[in-house]
Amino acid sequence: MLRGIIRGNIVSTRKQDSLVGSKFMEVQIKENDELTDKYIIAIDSVGAGIGEEVLITTGSSARLALHNTSAPADAVIVGIVD
Amino acid sequence: MLRGIIRGNIVSTRKQDSLVGSKFMEVQIKENDELTDKYIIAIDSVGAGIGEEVLITTGSSARLALHNTSAPADAVIVGIVD
Amino acid sequence: MLRGIIRGNIVSTRKQDSLVGSKFMEVQIKENDELTDKYIIAIDSVGAGIGEEVLITTGSSARLALHNTSAPADAVIVGIVD
Amino acid sequence: MLRGIIRGNIVSTRKQDSLVGSKFMEVQIKENDELTDKYIIAIDSVGAGIGEEVLITTGSSARLALHNTSAPADAVIVGIVD
Amino acid sequence: MLRGIIRGNIVSTRKQDSLVGSKFMEVQIKENDELTDKYIIAIDSVGAGIGEEVLITTGSSARLALHNTSAPADAVIVGIVD
Repeated sequence: MLRGIIRGNIVSTRKQDSLVGSKFMEVQIKENDELTDKYIIAIDSVGAGIGEEVLITTGSSARLALHNTSAPADAVIVGIVD
Repeated sequence: MLRGIIRGNIVSTRKQDSLVGSKFMEVQIKENDELTDKYIIAIDSVGAGIGEEVLITTGSSARLALHNTSAPADAVIVGIVD
Repeated sequence: MLRGIIRGNIVSTRKQDSLVGSKFMEVQIKENDELTDKYIIAIDSVGAGIGEEVLITTGSSARLALHNTSAPADAVIVGIVD
Repeated sequence: MLRGIIRGNIVSTRKQDSLVGSKFMEVQIKENDELTDKYIIAIDSVGAGIGEEVLITTGSSARLALHNTSAPADAVIVGIVD
Repeated sequence: MLRGIIRGNIVSTRKQDSLVGSKFMEVQIKENDELTDKYIIAIDSVGAGIGEEVLITTGSSARLALHNTSAPADAVIVGIVD
């Protein structure tokens, strides 16, 4: 899993039906308490907002965090770091 | 998920039967609003064209965005960024 | 699989229900007996602690090491190196 | 998906039974029409030969391109670029 | 798939029950006939030893090469290069 800070959200009106309602967040990855120059786009599942530090699950496991587990998602925010 | 700009399309006449009809797009990845030197080839599922900014899902989840979910695809364009 | 040294743990109170009880560890990856500057966050499944050297399984296979195999996890500590 | 040029083939007599008959090709990855210094080994499924430019699917989706979909393969050549 | 030279083995007494009996090998990756500075840990399934050149399958496909296909493994040695 990855951790990082949410830097922005991405709006996509024309998208797959199964992704309607998904909130796409761009997250800057943090490693060993330092920010890196790596970014990932993840769907929020816990109500996280810009500036918050979050945990991200990637790959096919990510879908298990969504209501619609057959949505074509490969990265989901699964927790907010305290 | 990844975001990027579609730079071109790739034509393959001799291919797996289950990929017939697929549109292969080469996409330049964008991170934190800046273009990177990373590229990925993704199958279009939303009618995106060259020059448009798109969202891409990778891995086995990508197949869920295709009509034929048993096609050997590992990257699919699932949305167009506004 | 990856090996590395556990450097810390990450606390997340607001998280997916299926991850309640999971211990998130930040692990510094080791390659060829040398520490690298790569880090990964993995859920512990073997009672490992900070400073211990561990084996990590990533991707969808990782979930098979958890009691709840439908938890959205993509990296799990599956062994402690002697 | 990835594209690249087939540079050689790899012979393995002692291997998993389910891989008997597989042709392992070493492919040099191409991005944005330029060759990179990245290589991957993929199983051929379309009759491609050394020097040809091909499309490769990676991950668990790759297996769907093989006759034996339970073979332990993670990269398969699924098309030849025109 | 990846190729590389087995450089050592890793001993883990305290591990997941489903991994008991697995031989964990550290493999130095080779690309285009040259050794790289990348390493991966893979479970042996073909009786390979230190110094031998091998083929490795990664991801969920790797498990298909093991007797216990529900073991939490993400990299398995599936062949020995001639």
